[in-house]
Amino acid sequence: MEGTTRLETFSDGVFAIAATLLVLEIAIEPRTRDVGAALTHIWPSYLAYATSFLTIGIIWMNHHHTVSLLARVDRTMLFVNHLLLLTIAFLPFPTKLVADYLNAPGERPAAIAYASTLVLMAAIHQVWWQYARRGRRLVADHVDDAALRGVDLAYAPGVPMYGAVLLIAFFSPLASVLLTFAIAAFYLPSAALFERGGEPA
Amino acid sequence: MEGTTRLETFSDGVFAIAATLLVLEIAIEPRTRDVGAALTHIWPSYLAYATSFLTIGIIWMNHHHTVSLLARVDRTMLFVNHLLLLTIAFLPFPTKLVADYLNAPGERPAAIAYASTLVLMAAIHQVWWQYARRGRRLVADHVDDAALRGVDLAYAPGVPMYGAVLLIAFFSPLASVLLTFAIAAFYLPSAALFERGGEPA
Amino acid sequence: MEGTTRLETFSDGVFAIAATLLVLEIAIEPRTRDVGAALTHIWPSYLAYATSFLTIGIIWMNHHHTVSLLARVDRTMLFVNHLLLLTIAFLPFPTKLVADYLNAPGERPAAIAYASTLVLMAAIHQVWWQYARRGRRLVADHVDDAALRGVDLAYAPGVPMYGAVLLIAFFSPLASVLLTFAIAAFYLPSAALFERGGEPA
Amino acid sequence: MEGTTRLETFSDGVFAIAATLLVLEIAIEPRTRDVGAALTHIWPSYLAYATSFLTIGIIWMNHHHTVSLLARVDRTMLFVNHLLLLTIAFLPFPTKLVADYLNAPGERPAAIAYASTLVLMAAIHQVWWQYARRGRRLVADHVDDAALRGVDLAYAPGVPMYGAVLLIAFFSPLASVLLTFAIAAFYLPSAALFERGGEPA
Repeated sequence: MEGTTRLETFSDGVFAIAATLLVLEIAIEPRTRDVGAALTHIWPSYLAYATSFLTIGIIWMNHHHTVSLLARVDRTMLFVNHLLLLTIAFLPFPTKLVADYLNAPGERPAAIAYASTLVLMAAIHQVWWQYARRGRRLVADHVDDAALRGVDLAYAPGVPMYGAVLLIAFFSPLASVLLTFAIAAFYLPSAALFERGGEPA
Repeated sequence: MEGTTRLETFSDGVFAIAATLLVLEIAIEPRTRDVGAALTHIWPSYLAYATSFLTIGIIWMNHHHTVSLLARVDRTMLFVNHLLLLTIAFLPFPTKLVADYLNAPGERPAAIAYASTLVLMAAIHQVWWQYARRGRRLVADHVDDAALRGVDLAYAPGVPMYGAVLLIAFFSPLASVLLTFAIAAFYLPSAALFERGGEPA
Repeated sequence: MEGTTRLETFSDGVFAIAATLLVLEIAIEPRTRDVGAALTHIWPSYLAYATSFLTIGIIWMNHHHTVSLLARVDRTMLFVNHLLLLTIAFLPFPTKLVADYLNAPGERPAAIAYASTLVLMAAIHQVWWQYARRGRRLVADHVDDAALRGVDLAYAPGVPMYGAVLLIAFFSPLASVLLTFAIAAFYLPSAALFERGGEPA
Repeated sequence: MEGTTRLETFSDGVFAIAATLLVLEIAIEPRTRDVGAALTHIWPSYLAYATSFLTIGIIWMNHHHTVSLLARVDRTMLFVNHLLLLTIAFLPFPTKLVADYLNAPGERPAAIAYASTLVLMAAIHQVWWQYARRGRRLVADHVDDAALRGVDLAYAPGVPMYGAVLLIAFFSPLASVLLTFAIAAFYLPSAALFERGGEPA
């Protein structure tokens, strides 16, 4: 159990810091004359901030729930978890790209970079879970198979969903970011659906 | 109980990081000739820093006290808490606006943006508390009604108080920020008033 | 005891974040031609970084030791502790001033700002300790008076020491920063002197 | 044991924050016209980010494992640990140098600065371990000599390995960074080799 505590504390630190660093992407030009207009003009920054903040919230909740099902971690798990954290800590960069270029020339590559990061993150999270779950490799004895299947169902849509976001980014960067926001806003309240009774194990 | 621990650790991380990131808004122009004069000139930066740092202190204390009254959290609570953290982690941006534009052209929209963020934060905190408290939805059995009424009283002035700050920002940005500072400075020492005996439950 | 845990976790977060943010003050000009020369030229940045990092280390160690002697905290203590954290989280700003202006025009006000912050920090830390210790207000029962006197002795030199640093800053900014570094470098290894046997209570 | 908890919490905070701050070095020029091309052009930023993030992962894992073998810490240990953290929190600076200058004029001093930081870090980590281990100064009673020899073997290659990286930096900066990346990528999965059975003590 000590093994999962270590992994959880470090991961939580990275989740909280990455989410809080997102605010550094929001800025107006130095010595702006019309501050009010500038604050309206940077609406993509607010959208990008909220989208990434809520998305990190989902991943944090899922991560916590699944770690609570594990009895131990091994070196491969620590490595895969570190790769997952690497993509989460990277998120402020594509978020800033979206903030700076959405609704302006260059919005397409910005949205593609953002969506690609999310696809990569979802894919690594899926590997993370499958590695722990296969043959109950790292699963705690007291966890029943229904709980594992609940997580399977919750994690399955991740890659296809963000894959669709990536596809849409090629056609409409704004629609792509709005869909990411919608996924976060609607998924976050329901993310704990599989935590029956509202109380995590 | 595990549920509230998760929420508390992540929230504490965001509180501490947001407060510590505030310092990044303080800067003087690169290659300043008269450093002494520049350090005096940026007094709005110090005021904005202290105001936001103390305000985050109040919210942290209130958050901690109320979480200690809860027995569990559900998915809605996690979502509302994440929205609260979203506004707290956002605070460094309007703080920087006040630091950069107070006592200069553009100070009005800067002060309005700052006050609006605080109103939003207070409103979400109120929703947070009412959701947990209504019908003792998430409240621990050992907590008596007097403790709940104590929090009701402590949380009630939040939205009206910051609403007044917002109103004043339209007329006098400086007065608006000074009032925010005064609320933080006088409220912080008394914030634990409802913690009878000075020792939190 | 719960009371001191809350205070300790939040304080530790601020200590660790403030120390780690210090690195953001170190930079060379964008698109520098002679990178090697630039890296040598910014030696004040390294000195300022190491000085502040070690100084935060001392304060963290002292803070932890004294909190371990307390049984509880009250609202005044939480307020004074928050003021202490406010000065610690502020440290990256004067550190950057020293990094940017030491050995250049403007070094005097930069060194004075740095030393003034340290004097203020030491003074608030002294108030912090005296408030907790007077009449054993917050001290745990099992702590004997010798342990309290040990902390008295350890905290007494703080304000005079940094006061001397401030005085020297008016005459020689470099000497002032070097003395701060020396205090940190020699005090840190001996800071736990009063932890008899090398094992904190 | 209290002693090692303090040290571990603070160290974990610095590890997590330093790793998450690395992302701030990644940026494209403001108002870039061809965002897609710019995102490809800054590949050294991604390489530097991944290399430092994985390297901090290794050190975190090793640090955690060895701290778990200790029963207590003394003042010298706290000082040496703080020096280790000083080099880890410094890492974002040379990482940014590599990101900005690799594959461009100035890449040699950038790569040398990066490798020198890693050599220093490995050397201090070795001192850290030897201080704790000699005569079982700080080692817990239940830890057998085989576990200590396991760490000896795991830590021995650190300084020579990064010494080689430093040497190579004089001839080929790119090869030097790629070797650092390879060390991190291949060492991280096997870093827990000495944790027999995959479960840390």
